[in-house]
Amino acid sequence: MTTIFYTGSSLDGFIADPQHDLSWLVPRDIDGSKDMGFETFEPRVGATILGASTWQWLLDHGETGALGGAPSWVLTHRDFDQVDAVTFTAADGLDEVRSIHAAATRASGEKDVWLVGGGALVAQFIEAGLVDELWVQFAPVTLGAGAPLLPARVELRLEEVVRNGDFVCTRYTVL
Amino acid sequence: MTTIFYTGSSLDGFIADPQHDLSWLVPRDIDGSKDMGFETFEPRVGATILGASTWQWLLDHGETGALGGAPSWVLTHRDFDQVDAVTFTAADGLDEVRSIHAAATRASGEKDVWLVGGGALVAQFIEAGLVDELWVQFAPVTLGAGAPLLPARVELRLEEVVRNGDFVCTRYTVL
Repeated sequence: MTTIFYTGSSLDGFIADPQHDLSWLVPRDIDGSKDMGFETFEPRVGATILGASTWQWLLDHGETGALGGAPSWVLTHRDFDQVDAVTFTAADGLDEVRSIHAAATRASGEKDVWLVGGGALVAQFIEAGLVDELWVQFAPVTLGAGAPLLPARVELRLEEVVRNGDFVCTRYTVL
Repeated sequence: MTTIFYTGSSLDGFIADPQHDLSWLVPRDIDGSKDMGFETFEPRVGATILGASTWQWLLDHGETGALGGAPSWVLTHRDFDQVDAVTFTAADGLDEVRSIHAAATRASGEKDVWLVGGGALVAQFIEAGLVDELWVQFAPVTLGAGAPLLPARVELRLEEVVRNGDFVCTRYTVL
């Protein structure tokens, strides 16, 4: 059981542009069925953890199905409508982060926990020592501004890199 | 004759940390003699263009030799000691950027022009339509803050990606 931050990113390390838009990411060429594409990753996912902005984006774009119906935890202080299999909870401090991670790990069974984002959420989980791997697919564009990939200093070990369509797909172990 | 931004970067798109330090970049494993390593790039360089902070860093670290003695233009308003083959000049506006680029291109003969950095300088040259390629070597670390790789929205085409030691080495055409 592994906890993985799987995400797309601009080449200069942004996971959303300043308008919380993903139009620079979504329409590009990638074969989801191979080389770290989403279809190769999704079967591993037993639970997901994500932030309020990420959840809001999924709601706004009718994409909550991207979580695959897996038990999910949305870390938020906002009021969202209840949804099956989704737990809305604040995560104030590392103890609560650890507690949420433990619940997600239990729910995921033999499968992995997907940290969907955003970067600030993942930085909390890294600080708590709970993240095993980063899988980042880099789109062929720089944005110059936006939501940062991972606002923290984190040492990594490169495990795998491959081209998939327009993307540089990378996999790292968190050290 | 090609104008190339060749640089190292953290995985999250910073080319220097907030202390203008490169200790997160320099000691890592890379074979300079292959796969976009510096020794494969250096023979192409006929002229270089760089910003004042980059020049100051080279001075402070005794690394001005990294420019290979090629005719170089340092874009600055500061007063630096004169150095053979180095022209210190301001670049206020795109006309001056184009004029400096034309001089560097003439001086480089059959060879390429290396944009050494930083990112803001390269963004000016991109805006002027003068940059052909990006070669970025990504180190296995996120910094979370620092000097941005390229503070602009720039569409790219992925030409090449390869692992070299600890690094993901990429080459892009600017569209």
